[in-house]
Amino acid sequence: MPNSAPLLPASLTIDNITSNVHAINSTCTSPRLKFLLERLVTHLHDFTRETRLSTSEWTSAIQFLTAVGQICSPVRQEFILLSDILGLSLLVDSIDHPKPAASTEGTVLGPFHTHDAPTYAANGATISHDEDGEPMLVACTVRDTRGNPIPGVKVDVWETDSKGFYDVQHADRAGPDGRAVVASDEHGEFHFKAIVPVPYPIPNDGPVGQLLEKLGRHPYRPSHFHFMFEKAGFDPLITALYVRGSPYERSDAVFGVKESLIVDLGLWGCGGVERYGVGRETKLMKYDFVLVGRRRSGVEASEGGGGAGGHEGEGEAEGIMVVDGMLVPDVD
Amino acid sequence: MPNSAPLLPASLTIDNITSNVHAINSTCTSPRLKFLLERLVTHLHDFTRETRLSTSEWTSAIQFLTAVGQICSPVRQEFILLSDILGLSLLVDSIDHPKPAASTEGTVLGPFHTHDAPTYAANGATISHDEDGEPMLVACTVRDTRGNPIPGVKVDVWETDSKGFYDVQHADRAGPDGRAVVASDEHGEFHFKAIVPVPYPIPNDGPVGQLLEKLGRHPYRPSHFHFMFEKAGFDPLITALYVRGSPYERSDAVFGVKESLIVDLGLWGCGGVERYGVGRETKLMKYDFVLVGRRRSGVEASEGGGGAGGHEGEGEAEGIMVVDGMLVPDVD
Repeated sequence: MPNSAPLLPASLTIDNITSNVHAINSTCTSPRLKFLLERLVTHLHDFTRETRLSTSEWTSAIQFLTAVGQICSPVRQEFILLSDILGLSLLVDSIDHPKPAASTEGTVLGPFHTHDAPTYAANGATISHDEDGEPMLVACTVRDTRGNPIPGVKVDVWETDSKGFYDVQHADRAGPDGRAVVASDEHGEFHFKAIVPVPYPIPNDGPVGQLLEKLGRHPYRPSHFHFMFEKAGFDPLITALYVRGSPYERSDAVFGVKESLIVDLGLWGCGGVERYGVGRETKLMKYDFVLVGRRRSGVEASEGGGGAGGHEGEGEAEGIMVVDGMLVPDVD
Repeated sequence: MPNSAPLLPASLTIDNITSNVHAINSTCTSPRLKFLLERLVTHLHDFTRETRLSTSEWTSAIQFLTAVGQICSPVRQEFILLSDILGLSLLVDSIDHPKPAASTEGTVLGPFHTHDAPTYAANGATISHDEDGEPMLVACTVRDTRGNPIPGVKVDVWETDSKGFYDVQHADRAGPDGRAVVASDEHGEFHFKAIVPVPYPIPNDGPVGQLLEKLGRHPYRPSHFHFMFEKAGFDPLITALYVRGSPYERSDAVFGVKESLIVDLGLWGCGGVERYGVGRETKLMKYDFVLVGRRRSGVEASEGGGGAGGHEGEGEAEGIMVVDGMLVPDVD
């Protein structure tokens, strides 16, 4: 043999192919990748056997995945969309970011986050310039699970315009709008001027939209506002707030709604004129976010200064160990 | 609610997401698609829970699949390659084309079949024009499972050049070479002049090649020659013949080798000069192919004239029924 690959049997069959793919992959030196591939191949093959997948269905799947890949661009991620509508994104986030009861839950990132949002160091910025939008003040706090305010948290926020489109969905996009990077102040507070988000269909002119149609599903998301929190020493939080009573609140195409993230939009009234300089008809989105100190096990690291390297000290669940920062089964 | 979608619970969690994705997909009117999606989502979610897939691993997977899609072109199908190296292509073919013991086994199509091969109506054509290739005569028969010759079978054939590349892999490809469409004659025979195939790496300059490298796997296929048979009334056969003793015979990167498809290359000697007009040093690839009459159950339809519509009369395996030409479980 020209190399040390494990030898396959003389013939591969429906019954022996799976174990032999495992055997060929067994030379992989990364225990985590080997484990992932072994489980992936097992599920993929079991699915194929259980469904007696036909060649024409396989061909359709190849064509579908190719179309999903080919429509991706710097401003469109159709594979994330596919993951979203299959409930996979929600599941991965739930697994990877378990939250102690007192902390804010995460939800799907979605495909519309960008890295070119303007940064506003001070509170009070106007982040949406859509004149047709209904004015809304977002005024929130960020605290740790003990209730202490966290200053200096980087807060990435983004929302649709009044027609239900993100800036990147406009072919003539001149620059970012409806998005910003703000920061919590010394009291753990941040506020900015935006517009009331509206329900919208996820991009449904591509292969994922075609799949939804074949499944008899609508492509809509209820009204929501995206938030992403980042600060050394804390578990990053990707989440969103949902407007109570929005259509599609109970049939979100990407399974992102969580009860704890649904908010009532209030009116600030006269107080807003004085404190935030907004009109009395301005809607208010208010929320107290709670971040978790950086330890996967849910036990917070000391939040003074040394928390950033917390991954090294990750707790280990039963039957699982950490190698190179990855969870692997400890049977290997 | 703006439509009749099933209602989701107020919060989706690790434990209830799967059944709720099924519920949302339950409005699908195609029982087969509904069944496929249900099994797919179940396996995808089980995989994710079992491996406790992290967000960064999910991101890597999204990036990998996107790269696989984006490198696809009219002459490169990286998703087929991915399916091949995971043993999926072999498995689907084995499931979809069960062969009675007496018939020829199928194997992977691979990514190099094209639709522009020249057609040669008469036997004896030269299909490879690579002067560095070692001359080889391919002389075969096609019969049904009762041993009767089958005339007029369309036989698509393709192979590498002497360097291990298919014509489509050359950036300066002027037209097809090393490929042809021939036909069996009134005796069920076909023969043509080619070259001895050589081992070669599957295209490994893309994401699938990178995955193989991470897995510690080589990208090579043993020497082989592709055949695809088509005639109304018979199950189409996609297969290949493998040259015995070729390197990688027992570690084929795409799991395509089957014992019944491995052949010894003989020398035709003097007989070849008279019968086929080839030199006595010309290698001979000889094989008797056996096609199955068109009934999935393996019971051949009458092979006179009425076999072409055979899909309507497909046999039904236990627990499985046929709806719109698709196999679905009869529990639905």
